Amino acid sequence: MTSEMHPSRWGDPTMAGELPESTRDLVEIALGIQETPAVGEVSLPPSRLQPGLLDELAQLLGAEHVLTDDEQRRLRTRGKSTPDLLKARAGDLSDAPDAVVRPGSHADVENLISFAVRHHVALVPFGGGTCVTGGLAARREGYAGLLSVDLVRLKALRDVDRRSMTAVLEPGLRGPEAEALLAEHGLVLGHYPQSFEYASIGGFAATRSSGQASAGYGRFDAMVVGLTVATPQGTLDLGSSPANAAGPDLRQLVLGSEGTFGIITAVRVRVKELPAEKVYEAWQFGSFAKGADAMRHLAQNNLMPTVLRLSDEAETALNLASQSDVGGEANSGCLMIVGHEGPADASATGSVVGRRALVADALTRLGGVSLGEERGTAWAEGRFHAPYLRDSLLDVGVLAETLETATFWADRERVYTAVRDALTHELGEQTIVLCHISHVYETGCSLYFTVATGQDEDPLGRWAAAKAAASQAMIDAGATITHHHAVGTDHLPWFAQEIGPVGVSILRSVKDGLDPTGVLNPGVMIP
Amino acid sequence: MTSEMHPSRWGDPTMAGELPESTRDLVEIALGIQETPAVGEVSLPPSRLQPGLLDELAQLLGAEHVLTDDEQRRLRTRGKSTPDLLKARAGDLSDAPDAVVRPGSHADVENLISFAVRHHVALVPFGGGTCVTGGLAARREGYAGLLSVDLVRLKALRDVDRRSMTAVLEPGLRGPEAEALLAEHGLVLGHYPQSFEYASIGGFAATRSSGQASAGYGRFDAMVVGLTVATPQGTLDLGSSPANAAGPDLRQLVLGSEGTFGIITAVRVRVKELPAEKVYEAWQFGSFAKGADAMRHLAQNNLMPTVLRLSDEAETALNLASQSDVGGEANSGCLMIVGHEGPADASATGSVVGRRALVADALTRLGGVSLGEERGTAWAEGRFHAPYLRDSLLDVGVLAETLETATFWADRERVYTAVRDALTHELGEQTIVLCHISHVYETGCSLYFTVATGQDEDPLGRWAAAKAAASQAMIDAGATITHHHAVGTDHLPWFAQEIGPVGVSILRSVKDGLDPTGVLNPGVMIP
Repeated sequence: MTSEMHPSRWGDPTMAGELPESTRDLVEIALGIQETPAVGEVSLPPSRLQPGLLDELAQLLGAEHVLTDDEQRRLRTRGKSTPDLLKARAGDLSDAPDAVVRPGSHADVENLISFAVRHHVALVPFGGGTCVTGGLAARREGYAGLLSVDLVRLKALRDVDRRSMTAVLEPGLRGPEAEALLAEHGLVLGHYPQSFEYASIGGFAATRSSGQASAGYGRFDAMVVGLTVATPQGTLDLGSSPANAAGPDLRQLVLGSEGTFGIITAVRVRVKELPAEKVYEAWQFGSFAKGADAMRHLAQNNLMPTVLRLSDEAETALNLASQSDVGGEANSGCLMIVGHEGPADASATGSVVGRRALVADALTRLGGVSLGEERGTAWAEGRFHAPYLRDSLLDVGVLAETLETATFWADRERVYTAVRDALTHELGEQTIVLCHISHVYETGCSLYFTVATGQDEDPLGRWAAAKAAASQAMIDAGATITHHHAVGTDHLPWFAQEIGPVGVSILRSVKDGLDPTGVLNPGVMIP
Repeated sequence: MTSEMHPSRWGDPTMAGELPESTRDLVEIALGIQETPAVGEVSLPPSRLQPGLLDELAQLLGAEHVLTDDEQRRLRTRGKSTPDLLKARAGDLSDAPDAVVRPGSHADVENLISFAVRHHVALVPFGGGTCVTGGLAARREGYAGLLSVDLVRLKALRDVDRRSMTAVLEPGLRGPEAEALLAEHGLVLGHYPQSFEYASIGGFAATRSSGQASAGYGRFDAMVVGLTVATPQGTLDLGSSPANAAGPDLRQLVLGSEGTFGIITAVRVRVKELPAEKVYEAWQFGSFAKGADAMRHLAQNNLMPTVLRLSDEAETALNLASQSDVGGEANSGCLMIVGHEGPADASATGSVVGRRALVADALTRLGGVSLGEERGTAWAEGRFHAPYLRDSLLDVGVLAETLETATFWADRERVYTAVRDALTHELGEQTIVLCHISHVYETGCSLYFTVATGQDEDPLGRWAAAKAAASQAMIDAGATITHHHAVGTDHLPWFAQEIGPVGVSILRSVKDGLDPTGVLNPGVMIP
């Protein structure tokens, strides 16, 4: 695994191979694609930062932590949405930062913020660079420059409290790094978004992230018990207790703030014992509705496994077609993945074997058919690889992207249909729309859509129209604009509708109070 | 049960009898009290509201919903802290509102807020009047008057969604009223603070309340999935989904805002199936530390019962002394109450019998000795009666009050000792300090202190000094100023220390944005 990602692709370039000839034929026939798109010549705009400012930055952080070379700037350009990748492939790196700076401490971050306020320079916090909603494409007009604040030097596990089962993590730690440090203490965080291999602790907090195992370990916002945040007004230290009634929970105002209120320099998280056993199994349900009802039953009866996912009929069919070596049964219906992580000892409380039996019993009573572990294990092994498949698809001219929402159980069917209809209406017949539920609550669930169609002449324009139609369908149906991808810049118009003018005014008030000159990630998250 | 409370006492006056002669003797000897305090002559300041404003209010709400008679104003004076009661007993009703208004709809509340802004009148939302931290004693200097906004007419169960397991409740519903309406649908909310019989849904939300069964049903902030709030800037409607990543969770900014950002007119809550069985049992542990360790084990191993409480040695001794009819064993150590509510059918998931066996097994392994159901049932029957005992104690010259905090497990012992020491140092030898843990999390717990000493000549001054010392001890030990009593006006100085100047500035920014003229509960919650 490489630690940095090219702006036009995901992760390690050796991981995204060419599609097999058979899949490629399928893609060409199904989506009507005949030509492989040209990859444009990449050119970078020159850095606009005045030499005097660069000198001052070098004095603040050390010259070796102020980087202006093309490669470093290119690597911090935008995030990993399909439009981001398409722009980079077309040679458009106009959103490149003017420089990359690497603070090494909370004090460095404070100094950097003072510098930014003093010279009206925009600061874009950078963790893993995995944002898919334009959160790294801050507004730069009117600023003396734009700095990518790479938190790569803030990588310490600062404290482990085994009695309270908490740990203090620095924001630059990527998912696997944080887990490796915790594992040395026999502990686990358990936060596995699809971006896990690259995304950072600071990013998880700033975007109020959810992971594939949030059913068992909880959402990231439920894991956070304390936060340290550098703001233009000084340092904010939150987290006196697990929970309290001391005014509004300000931790929840920082979580999801996407670098616009301050830069998170430490996160105190709740941790768990490292699970001795992990089992992933597959189940089949007759329909998406029946599978969703089974999930609802588990959530409303305190029977949650660690991982719980359900593909709709279309995603199930494609998934099984691409894994045709894994048995021949169950070519219809909907596939559910159920994972259990915990103690291996059957007599231990919450043992995998005990919980697995309880959940299996419930799923069987609700009409599920066990398909065994093979497909579950295959899912677990490939759980972080979907972005590589997207690269391969983009290579052959497919426009592939995802979008997601969440709603209450009573509205699940209606939201599902509205978003599907909006996408197919906008993109036309030769479009594949797949959906799965990956996050389940007592009162509702997420809906995650994967879309594939041909790139045609104007893939960016085509996708923008489809995304807008799907987003409006979510809001019109009363659902959220994003369950776990955050707001960024892409979701702003619909986020404004979701929280309404009074909600928007609250965010603006907080922003104006904390960052009156607007140097922190300008244009992001706040409509 | 009467529906309204006299400002000098709790609840139904027939419930607080005289102390038995034997207990009274004990109080006199232990706390050195010889005289029963005199109860002062009660007089009310005249209403300061100009007749023109009263006429306008009558036009807005109907004359029958604008009340200025002494009795109505007296019943809305302050809350139920011991200082509140002592002031009322001494005849000081200087904090009485100028009038009581009763809006009957969200539109009425909006109109009332417009009226308040127009004429610079302070609005104090009133639900159950059970606040113990001065949250009903808003600042009135500089205002044309102060209105108690009694939400008693907003008492509807507006929607039940059995599929999503949510219900929309209006803020004026008191605890038992909300549960009775939900019970007609076979549902339960499960929120039982000690103030349950009088406190309201709006108050639960506005103060980020916890209940005695929060271990099982969750804190009130975890129950809320949606909120409607009337603010001077318009209506705020939050709750598009169970959870999401669409910016900060603004619901958590309204929860705990204590009427300073807006008036809550509807709350969408997660509900559960009405439990068919409820069992409360008692356990004995050798020490407070051993009992707390057992609680920690349950919380960190997903073994939480519905109710989980632990008294320290002093509280246990007093509790057993006052219940001497209940068996003779276990006169030492610490008493734990463990409650289970859920399905009666042993084969149902989460059945009481199944969970009870798991928890009992764990507690036995951790050194607990089961004392059976008798004391557990006695606790459950008397669970809402402590405020009546306080009235009886105040009647005979005892200064009795409670205060509470929360901290992480690693700091529990240190915080416990620091607060006890501060109280006994300030109040002197003849003081009883009892403590229990009533709320347990994976990472920490609450600590709830009950204090009893003689009233002496200046009970208000004595208590103010003791409360200040205990509060500073909490903050100095890194704990929170309040786990479940909210900020009000009494906790402001320590709340400011807890969240720091940047935290305070955030609250002020939100306040200035939503309520620029400061008519909503002025002087409360925001330092």
